[in-house]
Order: sequence, then structure tokens, then C-alpha cells
Amino acid sequence: MARYLKNTWYQAGWVEELAPEGVLARTICEIPLVFFRCADGTATALIDRCPHRFAPLSAGKVAHDRITCGYHGLAFGADGRCVHNPHGPIVSALAVRAFPVVERHSAIWVWTGAAEQADPALIPDLSYIDETPPLARIAGYMPTAANYQLLSDNILDLSHADFLHPDTLGGINTSAKSTNRQDGERVVVDWLAENCVPPPAFRATLHGAERADIWTEVVWQAPAVMTLGVAAMEAGVARRPQDEGYTLHNMVPETATTTHYFYCATRRFRIDDQPFTDFLKVALAQAFVEEDKPMLERQQARIGQADFWDLQPVLLKIDGASTRARRVLQEKIAAEGAAD
Amino acid sequence: MARYLKNTWYQAGWVEELAPEGVLARTICEIPLVFFRCADGTATALIDRCPHRFAPLSAGKVAHDRITCGYHGLAFGADGRCVHNPHGPIVSALAVRAFPVVERHSAIWVWTGAAEQADPALIPDLSYIDETPPLARIAGYMPTAANYQLLSDNILDLSHADFLHPDTLGGINTSAKSTNRQDGERVVVDWLAENCVPPPAFRATLHGAERADIWTEVVWQAPAVMTLGVAAMEAGVARRPQDEGYTLHNMVPETATTTHYFYCATRRFRIDDQPFTDFLKVALAQAFVEEDKPMLERQQARIGQADFWDLQPVLLKIDGASTRARRVLQEKIAAEGAAD
Amino acid sequence: MARYLKNTWYQAGWVEELAPEGVLARTICEIPLVFFRCADGTATALIDRCPHRFAPLSAGKVAHDRITCGYHGLAFGADGRCVHNPHGPIVSALAVRAFPVVERHSAIWVWTGAAEQADPALIPDLSYIDETPPLARIAGYMPTAANYQLLSDNILDLSHADFLHPDTLGGINTSAKSTNRQDGERVVVDWLAENCVPPPAFRATLHGAERADIWTEVVWQAPAVMTLGVAAMEAGVARRPQDEGYTLHNMVPETATTTHYFYCATRRFRIDDQPFTDFLKVALAQAFVEEDKPMLERQQARIGQADFWDLQPVLLKIDGASTRARRVLQEKIAAEGAAD
Repeated sequence: MARYLKNTWYQAGWVEELAPEGVLARTICEIPLVFFRCADGTATALIDRCPHRFAPLSAGKVAHDRITCGYHGLAFGADGRCVHNPHGPIVSALAVRAFPVVERHSAIWVWTGAAEQADPALIPDLSYIDETPPLARIAGYMPTAANYQLLSDNILDLSHADFLHPDTLGGINTSAKSTNRQDGERVVVDWLAENCVPPPAFRATLHGAERADIWTEVVWQAPAVMTLGVAAMEAGVARRPQDEGYTLHNMVPETATTTHYFYCATRRFRIDDQPFTDFLKVALAQAFVEEDKPMLERQQARIGQADFWDLQPVLLKIDGASTRARRVLQEKIAAEGAAD
Repeated sequence: MARYLKNTWYQAGWVEELAPEGVLARTICEIPLVFFRCADGTATALIDRCPHRFAPLSAGKVAHDRITCGYHGLAFGADGRCVHNPHGPIVSALAVRAFPVVERHSAIWVWTGAAEQADPALIPDLSYIDETPPLARIAGYMPTAANYQLLSDNILDLSHADFLHPDTLGGINTSAKSTNRQDGERVVVDWLAENCVPPPAFRATLHGAERADIWTEVVWQAPAVMTLGVAAMEAGVARRPQDEGYTLHNMVPETATTTHYFYCATRRFRIDDQPFTDFLKVALAQAFVEEDKPMLERQQARIGQADFWDLQPVLLKIDGASTRARRVLQEKIAAEGAAD
Repeated sequence: MARYLKNTWYQAGWVEELAPEGVLARTICEIPLVFFRCADGTATALIDRCPHRFAPLSAGKVAHDRITCGYHGLAFGADGRCVHNPHGPIVSALAVRAFPVVERHSAIWVWTGAAEQADPALIPDLSYIDETPPLARIAGYMPTAANYQLLSDNILDLSHADFLHPDTLGGINTSAKSTNRQDGERVVVDWLAENCVPPPAFRATLHGAERADIWTEVVWQAPAVMTLGVAAMEAGVARRPQDEGYTLHNMVPETATTTHYFYCATRRFRIDDQPFTDFLKVALAQAFVEEDKPMLERQQARIGQADFWDLQPVLLKIDGASTRARRVLQEKIAAEGAAD
């Protein structure tokens, strides 16, 4: 079994995926989890396996702040303890592990490590999502059959857009000025394409300007949460905060070879322009579903079950940020292992 | 490879699944078997793998009391010995293992252990099938991707009906009086629901009675043959033999995680009532295919390749009979292992 | 991982499968390969895995005698060396292994062993293909989920046609005179069916003759290249070269349990008879796709992951040639292992 970072918040889904008294089954880091929502709206996460006969609780029903197993009727509360046994007394073993859950930034977050360390302050700051009117957000979920670190690599090296997304986003990053640095436990990489011909996806923003300065930045934090900032200005015009857009790319391991990819694009400009939102939605879907996903899955197929580093990848300059990020994550996982 | 009980009769199918000179391929306890019928009607079972090049004999043809391999024409008789080699002499190695087969109670039975111990008297007594006119029987076969002992557990604990089959069979067993006991190598469990509101599937039998006494009994014997007796009487009326119905639930291991589930419902009442038979047929199919099967398969998926006991299931009072049955079976398998 | 013969030419495909500047991805002996064609028409084979991030090169583009990775734009020439790195200098590690490729007899051949030993003179002599006008050839490709040696066995023992292809090709070989012999590293087996009733597929050739002499010969060479010669004459008439037809059966291992089956039927008679070609094409497709392939795949399913010899197949007289061929191949593979 692969090693995953435990003491961290993983995004389990988007808030709207969990209806009132609804159920969401999602495996994270190979742990089968069931999420449900109590009457007061709070969400909860339990091991999705009844301790009696191992039926998935997600095949049951939610009502009155409890989830009832669909097989023999054992009911569990938000803390994972059995609150109803139709067949006898409630012994202490009748419990499933509960996981800390917090809803923030329109996302559901679950902590897979020691519950006492589950500080909500450790949830990544994605306040740009909250600051964007819902209609101007483009949130999505794309399950992908590749290791989550391959998906992080993808975002931490945007030069790939020039080759994989030539008709929408690409054409500017390979030749852009780029730096990357470690900022505490964060990894930051940016690109500045000056006086460039704007790629198609940027043209609508530029009001017909034929030359642009395009700034892009990715901030990564463990395990694989990335915010991609971008701003396209007419060439020579200074970048202003209101020109910026920020997109979450959050790669959540389901297993060693499958990933829950959550994304949410926000922007500070043209936020009331619904046709523009719709245009971006289509452009992102094309890039993610038709271009990134097949490449990532074929990449994983070639890697198979091998360890990434064992295959001795040739490192290029463009891999600086992703290598930093892999190293930070590896050290954090190793530190947890040493502490165990 | 899982350990299975060897010296026992496994149901391989229903008699009508094997046409005159027909072929039936079925893997039992991970042994690939081919069944065919001789001209006099007797059925035979051989290893379904030609000793020459390992083609499945079931891909061949049956005629004149022999099965002929479809690849190179070697023919084998009912005893597994080669009776025709188009390419030369018949050497003694040209043989496949034959298994004792008996047809009884409308079922085909095969003995996977030592042939000299294959006493037909050891076939479970299912004479209630023979006593029921064929049109009043509801026989079926439901392959299920779950371990056969999970399917036995299902029948040995009918309280599950209250949760899994609430609209047809459920609602009475959790609150019923229940006892279980071991009777030699059999496990017997019964439920008596007195003065209960009859579940929908029982209403037709009760001629409009609003309150009923419903008696249910399951008799298990190794490896996983169960007869479920049931009788629904108007509340306060004594049960008579002619009120009873008996249903076979026979769980035959195909592999460690897949099962051949054979069932046959019989009854002593309304045996000429074809619409009632049709109604029951639909009710059973709904319960088995739409409710039991998905739950059992999801249960197996959560268990994966793990050993059931290693996962430390929490035992409830309702697990008494299934735990007894698992123990009896385990002891019989262990005894065979010790004798080997 | 299975052991394969390395120092040999494997057919990777038919020439027309690789268009000018086209790409062909094919795994041979578990090695993922990408084939592409340079501007001058020469074909090349590289490991189909970029050394940077392991994307398959076959997901990229071919132009100007190079293949460009579709993920980050690294380009590789026909010798496997990187010829363009958009992101920095070309270090020596930026290379993929190249494999010798030769196109001959309408086929693309790749050498998987030591490049310095890749002598084109070692390519099997299939000049009968070149001598046949393209319209009179019937070339095909049938991927089959069975070990390549099972496919060789199939051709080296044509008695199977009497049982597996009774309506087209069969009926004559089991009773024919047959000999097999080793000729250096080749294995030769022939059948002579004298004064036989011609099978349906031969009737068109015989102009209504009711009795025929049919000669068949298979010449095998490692790893699994077979030429099947056949001639059908009116009974008593001497065989002339112009009566003969030759068909390639080339079994190329993809993995231990999957095979690329390439075939090409040629003949010296009725070469301008397009309806006859069309008739043969249908007859071959029926025999291969509907009869051989299912049997071979079911055979493999019964063998599973076991070693063929460990299962102790009973050897018949008809297995003489295939046993010789398996032994020759085994010795050649063992010799390579000893030399390593």
C-alpha cells in the first residue's frame, strides 16, 4: 500500500455534492469513507464499512443525524458510535472511526490523521472562491486514473500547455521568464510572458489587443493543493489586482493510481459576464477532459506499478517546481512515518 | 487458494440446465467442470480441460456417451477415460478426472472429494421439491460476486429482511421470538412473529387477515445448503402442515469471491394457483436480484481479499446461527485437512 | 516476466500500417515500442516512453524525421537521441533506446536484442509474398489473447483443422501421411492426403475433381515464424510448382498471454482471379476469427498463469513438430540467458 500524508485536510468533494440528509461515498488515500449531513447541516465522515458484517454504510439511509446500515439496521451517529441496534445492546465495539470534517471555500474537507491535530486553520486559504459570485465560478470534478503527484506535476509545469493545449491555453510559457522558489512549505512558480501573442483562451479578456503581457503563478502546498493565478494585460500595461483570476487545482489521492481532481476557476473581472463564464467552462473542459486526462492516464499506464523515481526520470529546468513539491511531500510523509 | 469442503455434494445446476446430449460448464470450488448427459440420460462430470493441450472440453461436442474435444478430436467417456484418439493409441495418461454425479430433487449434484466416499444418501433431503408440482415451484439461479458464506449468513439471519426487503418480506423478524441451536451437524434457527402485521408478500396467503402469526425456520447443513420453512396463519390459528412452504437456498462456491446461488421455492397451499406462483416469482426476483445481490456484492467489495474473521466482525445476537454454521464448516474443512 | 528470444527479428506490423510520417504503437515481448517513418520513408522504432515524464511518445507527433512528445515537446530522432529540448540543453540522458528496423516482404521487422547483431540476412525468407501480386495476397492481423507458442502449436499440428474447421479446411489431415523433421534450426512437418475428398475450401481450385491429392507443409523457424505450403491436385496428378500456395503465419509475443498474429496468404495459381481471392479471404477470416481465436483464448484461460510443461500435457504423435519447435526455441532462449 502506498504511503500517504495523514495529518492533512483532503478535499472530499464540493459542498453541493452532499445534499441535506444526503450521502456521499468517496475513497480517499485508500480509506473508504461515507459522508453525510445532519439536520443542522453539519457534515460528517465515517469509515464506509459497518463493523458488523462490513456492508458499506453508504448503501444505507440518512435521517435524524444518523446513518442506518441498509443490511441489518445498525445506526451510527456523527461521531461514529452506534446509536441504535435493533438486535440487542450497544456494545462499545459497535463503532466506526469518525473523521474530522470542515466545510470551507465551498469544499468539504476531511482530516485523515490524528483527530486531535485537525486544526481548521490548516485548511488551505482559498478565499478567492468565497469572494467570487457563484455564477462566476467554474467548479468541477474529474476522476483521473493516474497518481495524484503526476497531476501536481502537470500544474507545476505549465510549459506543457504549449504542447498539450496549443489551441486554447498554450504558446507562451516555454519562452516566458520563469522562477520557482520554496516559501516555507509552499512551492511557488511563476511565468511572465511579455509582449506575447495571446493564446485563444485569453483573447476575450484583452479586448482585441494583439500583444499582451501574461503573468501566471502556481502556489503549491502539501499534499497537492494548488492555486493558479493568472492575469493578461495589454502589452506594457501594469497588472492590477482586478485583472487577476485564480483557479484551484486540488489533487486528492483515491488510490496509488487514481485521483479525485477538483478544480474551481474564479476571476475578478467580467464576473457578471455569463457568456464569458460559459466560454471558459467549455475551454477548461476541453483542456482537462480531452487533453490532460488522456495524457495523464497514458503516462500512468507507462509507469505501471513502478516507483516514479526508480524509473530515473531525466530532470529538466521545467521540473524545478514539481521536484521541490515532491521532495517537500516526501519529507512530510517520512516525518509522519518516523513519528509513528 | 481458498480451502473448500471436498467430501460433500455440491449442486452443479438444475436438471433442466443439462439437455439430452447437452453440455454444461460450471466451475465449483475453483475446479473447472464439464457436465454432459449420456444417451440413457445419466449425467457425468469431468475436469473441463483436455489432458492433451488443455482446451476446455465444454467447447466440444457430445454424442454417443462421450464428449469430444473440439480442438483435436480426443473423446472421453463418462468415466473420464479416453475412448477415441484419432491420432494414435490410447495411453493411460489420456484421461481426465471424473466426479460422481447424482440427479435428485430436480438438481444435479457433484462430489468433489474421494469418489469412494460419494454416498448418495449424503445428498441433502429436499423431498419437498419432489412433492411440489413443477408449476408450483419457483426455481432459479443467481450468480453472485460474493463468498458463499456471506450468502449463508444472509439466510441464517433473516432479520436482514426488515431492512433490505422492507416492501415485500420484511418487518417481522427483528421483533420476533428467535432461537437457534445445533442439531448434530445441522444448524437450526427459527423465528415466531406473533400477532404481527403481515408483510406484503404474505398478504395474499392470509385472505385479508390484518394480524398474523408467522413462523419461519432455516435448517442449514454443510457446506451451505439451507431450507427455509415458512407458514403464515391468521393470528391465533394453529399452524398446520398444509400452511407451510419450503424454499431451498443453496450456496455453491465457484471461487473464493463468487457463488452459484440456487434457489427453489415450494409450498403446500394454492399449488394450482398459477397467478400466485407468478406473483411470488416476481417478489422473489425483486428481493434476490435487486436487493440481496447488490448488498452481498458490495459487502464482498468492502471485504476484498481479507479473511472474514481477521476483520474482527462485531457479533450480535442475530449472528448466532451463522456463527455456528461457519464454525461447523470450518471444523469439517479442518478435519479433511488433518486427514490428508 | 516471461523470457523471450531477444536476438531475433519480430514482425511489428505490415508496411501499410505505418503511413508516411505516421505512428504505430505496438508492444513486443512486453517492450512498448513506437514506430514512425522519416521523410525518406525509413521506419524507426523507439521505446514508447519519454525519458522525461514517461508519457508515451506515440501520443505525440511525427514531422521532419523526429517524433515530438505531446506532453512537453521533447523531440527524438530516428536514433533515439533527443534532437530538440524546448526547455534547455540536450543532455545525453535525454535519449530513448532505438531498435533496428527493416522493412521486407511487406512487413516491418524489429530486432529486440543487441543492435550490433541485427543482421537483415536473418530475416526469414518470405519472398513468396513479394512474388505475389498485391491483389492476390490476403494479409491480416489478428490480436489473440493467448501465448504465442499455443498459436505456433496450432499451425504445426494441422490435424486440428479436421475438428475445428470441419466445414472449410478440415477432413484430410488426421488420416494423411505425415512426417516431421528438424532441418538445422528449422522444423518441417508435412501431410500428404492421397485420393481424398477435397475439403470445401479446396474445391474451387480443383475444377470439380471429386478426388484429390493434397500436400501441405509447414516450415517453422524461431521464434514463431511459419510458412504453410499447400497444393491440391486432381488425384494421381503430379504436383507442380504452379499449383502451390504459401501462407505466412507469424506469431509475435506481445505479452506472455497475448499475441500479435500476422498472416499473409499467397498462391501461384488464379492470381488474377479476384473473386477467388475474396472467397479465400472470407474462408480464412471464418477459420481464424471464429474458430481458432476463440479456441486459443479458451485454451489460455484454462492454462492461466501456469507453465505449459508444468501442467504435464499428454504428448501425441501429432505433437511431434510442435514439441520440436518448443524445444528449439527453449534452447535458443536458454543460450541467450547463458551468454548474458
